[in-house]
Amino acid sequence: MGKNKLGETDTRAPKEWDKQETKNRLVDILAELDELQNLLYAESKHSLLIVIQGMDAAGKDGLIRNVFGRLNPQGVLVTSFKAPTAVELAHDFLWRIHAHSPAKGYIQIFNRSQYEDILVTRVHKWIDDDTAYKRMKAINRWEHLLKEHNSTHILKFYLHISPDEQRRRLDERIKNPAKQWKYNEDDYKEARLWDDYMEMYEDCFRHCNEAPWTIVPADQNWYKEYIVATTVRDTLKALNMQYPGLKRKGQEQA
Amino acid sequence: MGKNKLGETDTRAPKEWDKQETKNRLVDILAELDELQNLLYAESKHSLLIVIQGMDAAGKDGLIRNVFGRLNPQGVLVTSFKAPTAVELAHDFLWRIHAHSPAKGYIQIFNRSQYEDILVTRVHKWIDDDTAYKRMKAINRWEHLLKEHNSTHILKFYLHISPDEQRRRLDERIKNPAKQWKYNEDDYKEARLWDDYMEMYEDCFRHCNEAPWTIVPADQNWYKEYIVATTVRDTLKALNMQYPGLKRKGQEQA
Repeated sequence: MGKNKLGETDTRAPKEWDKQETKNRLVDILAELDELQNLLYAESKHSLLIVIQGMDAAGKDGLIRNVFGRLNPQGVLVTSFKAPTAVELAHDFLWRIHAHSPAKGYIQIFNRSQYEDILVTRVHKWIDDDTAYKRMKAINRWEHLLKEHNSTHILKFYLHISPDEQRRRLDERIKNPAKQWKYNEDDYKEARLWDDYMEMYEDCFRHCNEAPWTIVPADQNWYKEYIVATTVRDTLKALNMQYPGLKRKGQEQA
Repeated sequence: MGKNKLGETDTRAPKEWDKQETKNRLVDILAELDELQNLLYAESKHSLLIVIQGMDAAGKDGLIRNVFGRLNPQGVLVTSFKAPTAVELAHDFLWRIHAHSPAKGYIQIFNRSQYEDILVTRVHKWIDDDTAYKRMKAINRWEHLLKEHNSTHILKFYLHISPDEQRRRLDERIKNPAKQWKYNEDDYKEARLWDDYMEMYEDCFRHCNEAPWTIVPADQNWYKEYIVATTVRDTLKALNMQYPGLKRKGQEQA
């Protein structure tokens, strides 16, 4: 994160960025991503966990469709974490999360994640600070477990929109019949807690650094998609993966 | 553990213990356990994880049947961990374990456990010491997670038999038609690695103390059952559980 306060961090692309040119470049990056994902699957040495967080209407669903929806669904899994069920609440908060950690060779997307347990819960004071900091520590340790014991690379994206843009998008949900299914009265109530959410997100970025956060300016979808696709591409490229070649009997190991 | 070396630790009851008297006392303890398990389930504030480890033929299955088999199966779950599958091996070693951590109100028995990943694997040198110590740290942290974030109480039992008793029991598996299904040629091979196993168990007891180990003299089943049942009873009793009384609407919380 460039700045400490989200309120001082841009939610839009730098002025000089050209929308059409960026969209053209995205097409090439998605082609690269497709190839890299195939390699990840073929090599099956690493896995990738992508955490997507953001306020309501920050564009999480659209990002998943437009960037990860272009990849082979056989190797890409998406899990949306909703409010926990009674059975999930009867376990530690990471239990339902761990169940969806990626197998080697796979890309796993989390649409919302373990971080909700230190965001919405804190804003509404369902948990106290002591519990929140214990959870943060547990999250760091859990992410470390995946990195150290399963070669899982973790990328966390915060889709950063402005309150004005959020308002515009929530209103659109009322007007547009194709978006009305997303309308939830409570979203407006939550929107009033904007500053509290920003504070809790900032605290989360400060304390949960076992894997890097990328703060993605997200008022413009084309820029958001470009930033996320590029970050994922760069991470996969850095793994220097190789197609394993012909496997012969007796060469495999546990 | 009373002594540092397993080889110097008794595998039999103290001489003065009377078998029949102990068996009679066990009957009373099992009745207490039954009541305490019902209370655990009714209150649903805590959970209990019981890890059972031991060499082949140490009597793990018999213990589970004779002690935990007397409790209400609705609130008592048993998971036997065998050699990991390909899918399990494609995840961190705690992934398949975490999936079976107990919900509040439940007793979960692990017949073998996360500890196999630093025992059999180390004896056969499938992993190096560095990996083993990292795994131990991860196990400690995982047990801490359950304790801190789900009020899970963890008891770990090592069923301690002598090599002579093991030999006697393995031979019995060949002779007795009702036990032949348990016979596994490899058990004799593993038995030859006795000293290596003892060394790895001792190292595990030294480093994995997030929850207590009980070394159970296990050459005599009656004594083994008594020690385990008593330890579980004492742990549940110390929770000072209460039946929750009538629940009225609006009193429940997440």
